[in-house]
Amino acid sequence: MPTLPVESVKNVISGLLQSKGVPEVNADVQVALLIDAELRGLASHGLLRLPRILERIENGVADPQAEGVAQWDAPGFLRVDGQKGLGPVVAMSALSLAAARAREHGVVVAAITNANHLGSLAFYAERVARQGQCLIAFSTSEALVHPWGGRQAMIGTNPIAIGMPGGDEPFVMDTATSVVSMGKIHDHANRGEPIPADWALDADGAPTTDATKAKSGAIAPFGGAKGYALGLAFELLVAGLAGGALGRDVRGTLDSTTVCNKSDLFIVIDHPVEPVSAYLAAIRDAEPAQGFSNVRVPGERGRALRRQRQADGLPVDDALWAQIVAMRQEMEIR
Amino acid sequence: MPTLPVESVKNVISGLLQSKGVPEVNADVQVALLIDAELRGLASHGLLRLPRILERIENGVADPQAEGVAQWDAPGFLRVDGQKGLGPVVAMSALSLAAARAREHGVVVAAITNANHLGSLAFYAERVARQGQCLIAFSTSEALVHPWGGRQAMIGTNPIAIGMPGGDEPFVMDTATSVVSMGKIHDHANRGEPIPADWALDADGAPTTDATKAKSGAIAPFGGAKGYALGLAFELLVAGLAGGALGRDVRGTLDSTTVCNKSDLFIVIDHPVEPVSAYLAAIRDAEPAQGFSNVRVPGERGRALRRQRQADGLPVDDALWAQIVAMRQEMEIR
Repeated sequence: MPTLPVESVKNVISGLLQSKGVPEVNADVQVALLIDAELRGLASHGLLRLPRILERIENGVADPQAEGVAQWDAPGFLRVDGQKGLGPVVAMSALSLAAARAREHGVVVAAITNANHLGSLAFYAERVARQGQCLIAFSTSEALVHPWGGRQAMIGTNPIAIGMPGGDEPFVMDTATSVVSMGKIHDHANRGEPIPADWALDADGAPTTDATKAKSGAIAPFGGAKGYALGLAFELLVAGLAGGALGRDVRGTLDSTTVCNKSDLFIVIDHPVEPVSAYLAAIRDAEPAQGFSNVRVPGERGRALRRQRQADGLPVDDALWAQIVAMRQEMEIR
Repeated sequence: MPTLPVESVKNVISGLLQSKGVPEVNADVQVALLIDAELRGLASHGLLRLPRILERIENGVADPQAEGVAQWDAPGFLRVDGQKGLGPVVAMSALSLAAARAREHGVVVAAITNANHLGSLAFYAERVARQGQCLIAFSTSEALVHPWGGRQAMIGTNPIAIGMPGGDEPFVMDTATSVVSMGKIHDHANRGEPIPADWALDADGAPTTDATKAKSGAIAPFGGAKGYALGLAFELLVAGLAGGALGRDVRGTLDSTTVCNKSDLFIVIDHPVEPVSAYLAAIRDAEPAQGFSNVRVPGERGRALRRQRQADGLPVDDALWAQIVAMRQEMEIR
């Protein structure tokens, strides 16, 4: 696995995006999102996604220039038609409007449809928190998760992220409501490894440890009935308020050919936050349980890894990097 | 277990509350909350809580008359000092202000401190949803839950509820971020029954199936690291914005003698919601997995039970009802 300087990687993928008609300012946002995921060790939301983004632009289901059209349905409710724009471009544009209005109003909701994949929600939560505001972020996805007690995928992986200031560093939490990502199941299948028995059902709805069978099946909600209830509630709330598709009607988060009809919801809260550093320090210093070396605060492992990788360079998967370099060469030949 | 007419039970407990100085209008709100929990089969949040509420009033840590003092920190951010009022009285008063403002602004946050136990958050979510608005509700509690990888209780059971219109009936989801309630562990201890191995740690931080040992230990977060991350994020967000206590400093949600310093957060969203009934019907009608008879939509089992109990009467625990009747008789003698 080659370790590459972060700036070099950024330049290569920014060049690729720009070669497909992405304006430099939009490319910068998409690149920042993908690189941040790689830096934090979240490869499933990193460079792996680049080929699909480029394909989606080529196929006309992602508009490289669109930033979305925003409309204030109410003084605190921003509705955004992403106009097939790149997910992070539309999201950052919406958040910029929402953050400014939240400074006056205390709270703003931004509901987005017709934008492409947002990537890791932690990216947005951290940015908003560093500006001194709180963010609760939701997004839906294609149906990959079965309802608790069901055997077919009917619910998105529906993540939630929460970012807030209040310490030396912002607190940022980001989790899907599925027990595991479909990316991780694909990864097990590629390596021929079995998956734990409680991760997924096969296409017939039977529990399986065969990762290849799980790929065409359904992932379990995390935490059983409770995680199911949360994931379903997020799907209903986000799609209900934004006006996006629901359940098995959601398209365009996994393929390269269909317009993306999932939805996203941001709640930006602007209000002083009491200091939480002492509490987080107590959590961090808590005596670990049997089998654990320490207690972790969500987001901190990724942040530490990011510092290290910013200094030492980014380890990038061989095959993926070869694919990106080949695309780059093809672009230069053209 | 006696089955009693709902109105009779209401009258008895309303009389008890009023005998302690609770104005009738406030008693009605507290009674509605407790009875609704009983009707929905949530005994842990029902009449069981009444003796403690009465004791807290007697001991001066709950003010039967207070409705809280609200202040608009920003046009969309309502901060409420509950002034030791009964939880549902303060919450309904705050929600009334928030709902009215949300009709203009699209969204309002209400952050509450210094109010007593709110009870089941579903109660509020359903009411707001029936008025045509969405509610995301959070509340903190005394530290009962261990961080993932830790051995000591440091986090509240920190529930979230989401209510929204959009179908024939509102969708209402309500879940704690602990794997189980402390009430259920007490219930197992009372019956001398073991608890599942993944529910709790004992006071030394070791896993236990002994419910009595678990009572002085720590409950697991639901869904492992993910549920821990959610519960911690809710604690930080709610206490950070409302200004309440954090972690092991939280008091007054389980005892009868200390002022309650947990916090509550409501986000009221007023915006048209796309219909979600067809999607919910598909979930409800989904083919069940092995070992399940059907797929349930969160909140619907409780609602069906409520309809049945409203017609047939409320089954009330013998010992609890005897205690309530004795309190009532004592009140009449006085």
